[in-house]
Amino acid sequence: MEKINLDLILANLRASLEHNQVDAAIHLLESLRVPDRADLFSELDEKDQATLLPNLKPASSADILEELEDQEAAKLVRSLPTATAIRIVTEMEPDEAADLLGSIQPLQAETILAGLDDPDEVRPLLLHPEDTAGGLMTSEFLALRRRMTTTEALKAIHEWKPEIETIYYLFVVDRYEKLCGVVNLRQLIVSEPSTLMLDIMDPDVISVQAGTDQEEVARIMSRYDLVTLPVVNTNNVLLGVITIDDVIEVIEDEATEDIQRLGGAEPLELPYLDTSSLGVVRKRIGWLLLLFLTESLTGTVLRYFEDELQAVVALSFFIPLLIGTGGNAGSQTTSTLIRALAVGDIDLGDALRALWHELRVGLMLGFGMGIVAYGRALLWGTDAHLAITIALAIFTIVVWANGLGAVLPLFAARMKIDPTVVSGPVMSTLVDATGLFIYFTIARAIIGL
Amino acid sequence: MEKINLDLILANLRASLEHNQVDAAIHLLESLRVPDRADLFSELDEKDQATLLPNLKPASSADILEELEDQEAAKLVRSLPTATAIRIVTEMEPDEAADLLGSIQPLQAETILAGLDDPDEVRPLLLHPEDTAGGLMTSEFLALRRRMTTTEALKAIHEWKPEIETIYYLFVVDRYEKLCGVVNLRQLIVSEPSTLMLDIMDPDVISVQAGTDQEEVARIMSRYDLVTLPVVNTNNVLLGVITIDDVIEVIEDEATEDIQRLGGAEPLELPYLDTSSLGVVRKRIGWLLLLFLTESLTGTVLRYFEDELQAVVALSFFIPLLIGTGGNAGSQTTSTLIRALAVGDIDLGDALRALWHELRVGLMLGFGMGIVAYGRALLWGTDAHLAITIALAIFTIVVWANGLGAVLPLFAARMKIDPTVVSGPVMSTLVDATGLFIYFTIARAIIGL
Repeated sequence: MEKINLDLILANLRASLEHNQVDAAIHLLESLRVPDRADLFSELDEKDQATLLPNLKPASSADILEELEDQEAAKLVRSLPTATAIRIVTEMEPDEAADLLGSIQPLQAETILAGLDDPDEVRPLLLHPEDTAGGLMTSEFLALRRRMTTTEALKAIHEWKPEIETIYYLFVVDRYEKLCGVVNLRQLIVSEPSTLMLDIMDPDVISVQAGTDQEEVARIMSRYDLVTLPVVNTNNVLLGVITIDDVIEVIEDEATEDIQRLGGAEPLELPYLDTSSLGVVRKRIGWLLLLFLTESLTGTVLRYFEDELQAVVALSFFIPLLIGTGGNAGSQTTSTLIRALAVGDIDLGDALRALWHELRVGLMLGFGMGIVAYGRALLWGTDAHLAITIALAIFTIVVWANGLGAVLPLFAARMKIDPTVVSGPVMSTLVDATGLFIYFTIARAIIGL
Repeated sequence: MEKINLDLILANLRASLEHNQVDAAIHLLESLRVPDRADLFSELDEKDQATLLPNLKPASSADILEELEDQEAAKLVRSLPTATAIRIVTEMEPDEAADLLGSIQPLQAETILAGLDDPDEVRPLLLHPEDTAGGLMTSEFLALRRRMTTTEALKAIHEWKPEIETIYYLFVVDRYEKLCGVVNLRQLIVSEPSTLMLDIMDPDVISVQAGTDQEEVARIMSRYDLVTLPVVNTNNVLLGVITIDDVIEVIEDEATEDIQRLGGAEPLELPYLDTSSLGVVRKRIGWLLLLFLTESLTGTVLRYFEDELQAVVALSFFIPLLIGTGGNAGSQTTSTLIRALAVGDIDLGDALRALWHELRVGLMLGFGMGIVAYGRALLWGTDAHLAITIALAIFTIVVWANGLGAVLPLFAARMKIDPTVVSGPVMSTLVDATGLFIYFTIARAIIGL
């Protein structure tokens, strides 16, 4: 229902723009909820976007730039006059502003930064890589003092910038700005007016260092059900606060990356339909070529067994079936282990347990598949020796693929490589060449070629 | 660092239990944070768990049961005396209690339910399927009235059960219990004491119906950065509230399911190492067999071209390479589209655009790969006709795989089937048989067999 409305509004918006009714278009956009506004805006072509952005309220433009992908936002800002850009960036959340400024020309970024009312809110954030706790945090937070009373704390909240929504948990610092506790807004309300923060704060506060990877941040916030997470430096000085909405994006983006890598492609940086065909090709061709060259090992193996193939042409009928099943068994294992690693169900300390688990699974699956393959081969009228070869080969290949499928992601994790890169396609390709070798070696032994 | 501590504590815990020092073990467990406590608890064997659970504080036991997977929790509760079970379930959040009661014997569930102080808080939640908004929501929420003043609202919060953390957004209902607005705790604090809810509430409140799928719930909360989402019935009567922590679990679980399906296996219900080998086999054997039987089509295709294979044995050297590349190109496409569908970057209305996008990508990739394949074949000393065959075949197969890789997930989504089931392995298997047919047809035409 909501979707249909948006499509309708988009049509109206486009009609207004076509007839140069910029005011009507702006009115329409301003009436929408922020994410919807950003969505429709990004559906417009660049010319219309460039027309609208300087005419919207700076706060609305800021909302839109915050919602857009960094690259899209950067492209728009590059086309804006500096004064307009400054007016808009001033309205952005410091962490979003820092991400944006990090994506444009350093010179333009410096000019905009210099024009901000409070550049020191944004500048320190530029120092942190975007995918760390420091890159996720906002520097706009309200820190309470240990010896503040409830009344003073509530007064500080009154006076604090009203648009900030994330003050349900307030962090308490000592005189050296070191983090020493957390109170929630609810405690402030229900406590006596003269209560000190010291007495109601929970000193057991979970925090992360600025350099912590964003995946680790997501894992901690999700595990401990945190809405906000304070970021500190090595001296435990409070630098900023990460809020849950930024982390949900991280969780979704990381899953997207994992899934695209599992499919054997580098993750796209923009939404799918916003990426040009050439852009998609660029993300895929590298892996496709690498896999092709690895896969061409299968040709080498087959040439090595040329005599056998010449003598018993029926051997070739089972090639795709055997290596396909090996690849499938391996992919099942790899994807399970990759996810178990990602969500923390297993860690490197469990490597041997996981391998042993998969080998047992492989033995059972291989046994079952071997029997089915034997039956299938006989049904095709294959001679008994060849049928036994197929059954033994599939058993061995499945066990081998399960073992390899368990070892590869664990090995990658050990080497600090993202385990998803060794998944799906890489897995199948490796199993293909080795599986053929297993198949023909068994064939040679049994059929006695 | 945190992990090492937990391992150490686990060792201590086990040592205490071995020496029958149940009190020491309980003290150790009670000193931990809730998720850590649940984690260590689930590492213990069942006998120890059954010993500890009735001896922990009911609130601690409740925390543990909430954190465990439903099936594990249900197993434990089944072994408890009814009185203990009632004491523990009383302390659980209503939504978690409902999930648990839904997983045990209806008779035991009814007995426990009858023993609760306030069974009506839990009973309505049992009506909703677990994967809908109704199954995620809690019925423990505080609704404000439109004509309440700020003072009255704050008083209601004072009197409201103190352990509930999720009262940062409070929902306002009219006299028929219909949802009519939202205020946040911050607004209550900063407003004048006599302000009416009516005047400060935001009437434009986003809500979902009880039957809404949990994926849709996650999408809405993530899109609009919501910390809580109210659930209503068809008459807009407020039934409950979903909090962000439940939804983060949903986002992670859905990604896990997608990734396991992408790997060609049914999702596991328990964490990886808690699933028995036989349990893992059960989740995988079905797909592995189905794919095997489909893949055996490749054998049929190859038999059909037996004469060609007999005449030019070198044709078989390229079989794994060609179908492997086709499978890889198809997997790249499928995984990209599946994720784009899942995060809402594309919907069914974009089907033709997506297909066209992939065909262009396929043409470019196919062209590039064709040239590389030609070179690779010549390097192997393959004769020119066969090399041309390989190049043309790989071009055609890549374009075909990209098209099929785009159509399949879109078609699945159209048929209301989870698109992940047609991914990775299914994709490769389909491309294998059709790819061989393409290869040999081209070979027949060019080499003139």
